[in-house]
Formats: sequence, structure tokens, C-alpha cells
Amino acid sequence: MTRIRDLVITPVAFRDPPLLNSTGLHEPLALRCVLQLHVDGGIVGLGECPGDRGQLDRLAAVREHVIGHSVHAINRIERAVERTLAGVADPIARRATFSAIEVACLDAQGHLAGVPVAELLGGAVRPAVPYAAYLFYKWAAHPGADEDEWGPATTPEGLVEQARRMIDRYGFRSVKLKGGVFEPDEEIAAIMALRAALPGVPLRLDPNGAWTAETARRVAKELDGTLEYLEDPVLGMDDMAAVAATAPMPLASNMCTTSLETIAPVVERGAVQVVLSDHHYWGGLRRTQHLATVCDTFGLGLSMHSNSHLGISLAAMTHVAATIPTLTYACDTHYPWNAADDVVLPGALRFAEGAVPVPDGPGLGVRLDHDALARLHEAYVRSGRQVRDDAGYLRRFQPGFDPSLPRW
Amino acid sequence: MTRIRDLVITPVAFRDPPLLNSTGLHEPLALRCVLQLHVDGGIVGLGECPGDRGQLDRLAAVREHVIGHSVHAINRIERAVERTLAGVADPIARRATFSAIEVACLDAQGHLAGVPVAELLGGAVRPAVPYAAYLFYKWAAHPGADEDEWGPATTPEGLVEQARRMIDRYGFRSVKLKGGVFEPDEEIAAIMALRAALPGVPLRLDPNGAWTAETARRVAKELDGTLEYLEDPVLGMDDMAAVAATAPMPLASNMCTTSLETIAPVVERGAVQVVLSDHHYWGGLRRTQHLATVCDTFGLGLSMHSNSHLGISLAAMTHVAATIPTLTYACDTHYPWNAADDVVLPGALRFAEGAVPVPDGPGLGVRLDHDALARLHEAYVRSGRQVRDDAGYLRRFQPGFDPSLPRW
Repeated sequence: MTRIRDLVITPVAFRDPPLLNSTGLHEPLALRCVLQLHVDGGIVGLGECPGDRGQLDRLAAVREHVIGHSVHAINRIERAVERTLAGVADPIARRATFSAIEVACLDAQGHLAGVPVAELLGGAVRPAVPYAAYLFYKWAAHPGADEDEWGPATTPEGLVEQARRMIDRYGFRSVKLKGGVFEPDEEIAAIMALRAALPGVPLRLDPNGAWTAETARRVAKELDGTLEYLEDPVLGMDDMAAVAATAPMPLASNMCTTSLETIAPVVERGAVQVVLSDHHYWGGLRRTQHLATVCDTFGLGLSMHSNSHLGISLAAMTHVAATIPTLTYACDTHYPWNAADDVVLPGALRFAEGAVPVPDGPGLGVRLDHDALARLHEAYVRSGRQVRDDAGYLRRFQPGFDPSLPRW
Repeated sequence: MTRIRDLVITPVAFRDPPLLNSTGLHEPLALRCVLQLHVDGGIVGLGECPGDRGQLDRLAAVREHVIGHSVHAINRIERAVERTLAGVADPIARRATFSAIEVACLDAQGHLAGVPVAELLGGAVRPAVPYAAYLFYKWAAHPGADEDEWGPATTPEGLVEQARRMIDRYGFRSVKLKGGVFEPDEEIAAIMALRAALPGVPLRLDPNGAWTAETARRVAKELDGTLEYLEDPVLGMDDMAAVAATAPMPLASNMCTTSLETIAPVVERGAVQVVLSDHHYWGGLRRTQHLATVCDTFGLGLSMHSNSHLGISLAAMTHVAATIPTLTYACDTHYPWNAADDVVLPGALRFAEGAVPVPDGPGLGVRLDHDALARLHEAYVRSGRQVRDDAGYLRRFQPGFDPSLPRW
């Protein structure tokens, strides 16, 4: 038996551009947490998860209940985490804690067996995982800082320019726009401009619950024929079901269903047609595969959500996505916005024609850049940041900003 | 990459007692097939599945599409099998073919990594898997042969005696009766006798679709308070839903739902409350775990079905069942009826208090008894048997027997 001997938890902060969404503005530093799971034989498995204070506290709480287990005892570790965090009401928070540990266990298992994580999960059914260009309305620069390499995007033309540059650089063949930032008619105009500029490229729009059901129904109708799916136009199961009843395109969600507990009502009410998986939310790579079977069984489509993340998560997302035959939509990733500050050594992760080839080394196939980790941890410590606060950050520059949703 | 170099398919025939069910009588020999999957490095993975002609033909057809794959490429092998067998209408037949290969791949993977199959599946959450005593109405002997060690059981008293002996020998703590053999009132009397003789032991009855919905509703009412579940009292989704609507106990099934395609209507109509998994039917050990998540997501219970089988399948059933937290019912197994002719060497599989401890050797933890395999293959060849025909066998002694269901 190969036992877990230590779990090293390192919060990091990395540069993030001034990206806009329905609840505010991305801050100059995004927070994340890197796990190093030490097992017998000197092998270290890597994991990554959100880096807010609550997540760090939860990881610290479960650490002693993880150490000592076999690195193969994923199901028992899952139960130990669930027991330890039984007082945490939010199931996503519990599962994000377990998920990072599960990924680290699988990375270590892969190193032990000398096979990639995808092989531990039944093997890849595609050699590379397609991702979508993730467009954002954005400012040219964080206030007081130099303009970033992407420049401003607050108009349809700016977004088209951003899309072209993303596609030139990464080869993306699908495009997603984070909406919910401007009046719906402006965002309709943006989609129409993207549609005209990028004929044949599948488009998605995600206003993150910024609209009322009435607005969403109207926008959906106006965008008939332009979107492969409309993501979370409204908040809550009731309004999603009401919009889905008339929308001409499928509705996708990572907000109204983020756990298996909410799948049954989603199915019953037809509230969502495409579930946005996320191994951080759904309890790991194996549970993501289970979710795929659940979706397939009930006729739901499957795509993949992302938050701001680094290369360990990109590798994990790529390994699991490669193993799921029914994951036919391009996955979301924020990676192009954050890749400059990665904690993994260059070389293992690359985009080719918009897809990330499944790393072929053992485990996740990525190696930790210890210098980068130290630097980003130092940035975390210096920042004094504890939580993500897009709304508070935007309010510093637009004091009247109210993050309440729906807005339109 | 560790490649699959050969797949050796060996049909076997092993002794089976004269067990009665709703469609006839078990023949003196049951058919099964043993797979030996040879991979690089001289490692051989074992699999087991039904041994009827159609199954052998399907295995022969997919063999060349399996050889050459990585032994970790389970998802690709699944697709290759599905493509090769696309002309086979019955999804269970396709999945049983894949399932045996998947088990053999996992056995080989376990040998390569030096860990038990349960560990490849996320690890056991229980050290041993409880099974149920599987009672049958039976004759004392196959006609023309000597009486077998179990003797006759055609009355409530005979079944109670059979139950006591099974429990004495194996320690079972749950009891299942294969019904559908005699008039419903006789089988009610049998359950009542078992109830009185074995207070507190969970009981199940499986008439295998022998009843009309009207009969099933009446029997269910009369057995209120005595059964943990009633298994397949009627055939088909319509009648199962009709019976479930009034039955005081949960209905279980391995007949009206045997594939994920049938789960959605089962959920929608409330036709089944406990799904009887079977890795041979549902596409392997991983798919059985997925099924568990599907069931958990939609509030369905989970138990496990068996056909006549040998030790390779018992090991596979035990490994996967041990990893599923929600598999809280004792599993079915025919093993006590057939264990004398096993193809695995003694020692790895044993019953303790009605449960089989998860074998702790690498892979499935069982080793092939090559002499036994040769002997049982010889028995297969000599028998000239190609298919299972319980009805035809019973008709030889009861020419008027009509296997049509429902019967009562």
C-alpha cells in the first residue's frame, strides 16, 4: 500500500486582466491554491483549487484526515472529507476541497503506475481537447497600471478584435462571450458582430444571470440561429425553466445546477439542456465521468465550465475531458488570460488548433515550477487578499455599481 | 504503453443443480466463457461472461479489434466493441461482450500496478461485500442422476431447510427466493415460513415476471411487512409501474431496466425503486459505478443481480461492489450452487458471515486453475451444448410445460 505522508497547501496569487462580468471586475490578482500530496517513495501528486480563505480553511481542516490513507483510497478519502466538512452547508465547497485532493491522488497514482491520468480514467477517446476562446468585455488596464497586452474591449468591434487575436494565437474554433455587462441590446449587437466576423464558428453567450426571464426570452428569440447555447441567462431553476420553454437554443448552466442533487429537478423541469461540468464543483475527475453518464442517460448535453485557473487544473480538465465520449462541446478555459503566471514548467501544455493535446507523461503530465510557486505564494502573502471581490473592486471606480441581479 | 497481445476465449460447462424458475429448469451443465487477455510483459488479465453461442460469436468478432490497444484504453475498446457489434440489436449482448474484456483489462492493470482492482476503482469502502442466500425451488436430482448434496425443495419446509443449510455454511444475513415456480399462494406460504424461521433476516422474492399485474398487486399486499423488496413480479414497464403504484414494498428489477436507456422512463414512471446492477449487463465495473451515481441522483436504490457464474465474476462483483457506498443491499450470487466447479484456484475467495472479503492480491486477486479450465472446456466440448434452454429441459420431463409469462 502506498500511503499519503503529507499534504502541502500553498495559496498563490497571479495576475489577472481587468475582465468584466455581471458582478463586477476581475481584480489585479486572482487567488488559487496548489496542493502537493506527498506519498511513499518520494512521489508528489499535484492538485489545484480556488484559493479563497474558506477553501484554505477547509483544506487545513481535512489535511490530517487525508494523511495516512492509501493514495488509491479515493472513495474513503471522499467520505473522510465529507465527514470532516459535514458542518459546511455548501456542497460545492465540500466537493471543491475533495476534488483537489482527488486530482492529486490520481496524479500520484499515475506516477506510481507510469501512466497518464487519462489512462487511469479509462483512456482518452480523443488525442486533444478542444477549448473555446473565452471573450470578455474588458478595460484596457487596471486603473493606475499599464495597458495589458489585450487592450480594451467594450464594443462589438473590440470583441471581434479580441476574438481574432485569440483565434490567431490559439486556433480556437468555438467562441464564448462573458456577457451580463452591458445592456442586452449591446450584447446582442456584439454577438451579431462576432457572427458576421466569424462565420461558422459556434458562439455562446453567458450573461451570468443578469437578465429577468422576460428579457432573456426576448434576447433568446433575437439570437435565434446564432448561438450553440445560451448560458445562465437568468438565476434559479424557476426562471431557467421559464426561459427554456421558449428559447430556440439550448440553455446551459453552471449556476442553476452544480451538484447531482439538483440534476433531478433540472431534468423534471427541463430547466437546462447542457450541463457545464467542472471537476472542482462536481467532486473530481471520476465524478465528472459519472456526471457525463447521468447527462447521457437523461438526454442532457455536456460541456465544461472554468474559473480563473493555472496549468494543474488545465491538465486535469484536459485529462478527464479526453476520456468522455459525450463531451462534444469545446470546453471553457480562462487559461489564456492567466498563463503568463503559471506554476507548471513550460512544455507539457500547449494549444494546437484550439485544442490542448492530452499530456502524455505519467500522472497529469505537468511538473511544478517551484520558483514560480514561491514567487506566486509571495505575491499572495504580500497582497493580503483573502477572497475574490469583483463587485468591491469595480465599486472603487464606479461607486454607484450595484451587483444585484437580475439587472435588466 | 502496455499493449494487448492476445485474447484467448475459452467456453466452459460446469455442473448446475436442477433449480426451478419461471421459465423452466436449470440444465445439468451451465455455460460460461473465460477470457485470458495477454498483455506485454507476460501478464494475463481474466474475464468471465455468459457462454452461449451468440456471446462466443460476438467475442470472436471483436477479438481482432481489441488486440493491439493499450490495456488502459478501456474507453476506446468500448467504442471499438460497440462499432464492431453495431449490427447486434440487443444492447445487453453488446455490453456483456465489452464487460468481460473490461474486467480482464482491469485485472491486467492491477497486476501491472501491483494493486487490487478495487483500488483502481477508487478503493473499497467496505472490507467485505455481503451477499444473499439465493434459495431455489429444486428437484432432488437431475433425472437419471444421483441426488445432489442439497436435496429437494418444493415446499415451504424444504426451502426453510435449504435456507438453514446455506446460512450455516456461508453465514448469509439476507435471503432471496427465486419464485415464479408454483402458484402464488404457495410462494406466499414459503415466504411466510421463511419469515417465521428466520426472524429479522431481510427477505426477497423474485418470480421473474410470472404474474399479472392484478396478481402481483394482491401478492404484494399480502406480503406487506415481510419483504425488503419484491423483484420483477411482472414483465414490462407498464405493469411494473402499475404494481409499484400500490405495492407496500419497493420493487426491484433486472428485467424491466437493464441499460441506461431504460432508466429515464423508469424514473419518470416510478416503475422500479431498486435497480439490480450487474456488470455483465451494464457494461463493466466502471459503468456499474456510473449506474450507482445515476441511481443515487434519482433516488433509486441499488442492489446486484447474478446469473450462474464462476469465481472470476464473483471476484469482479466483489471488487466493484466494495467501492460503491450506496450499494447497501446484500448482492445476489449463484456461486454456492456452482462453486465446486470453479476455474480459479482455491483460497482467494471465501465467505465470512455471508460476505466475501475483497481479495487483496493484485488485480482481481484470483488465479486461474488451468487444469480446471481444461476439464470444464472439455466438458463443454463433449456436451455439444450451445445455448441455455431451461424451458426445453423441463419439457423433456413435463411435456405440457409452457414457458409463456405471465402464468398466474
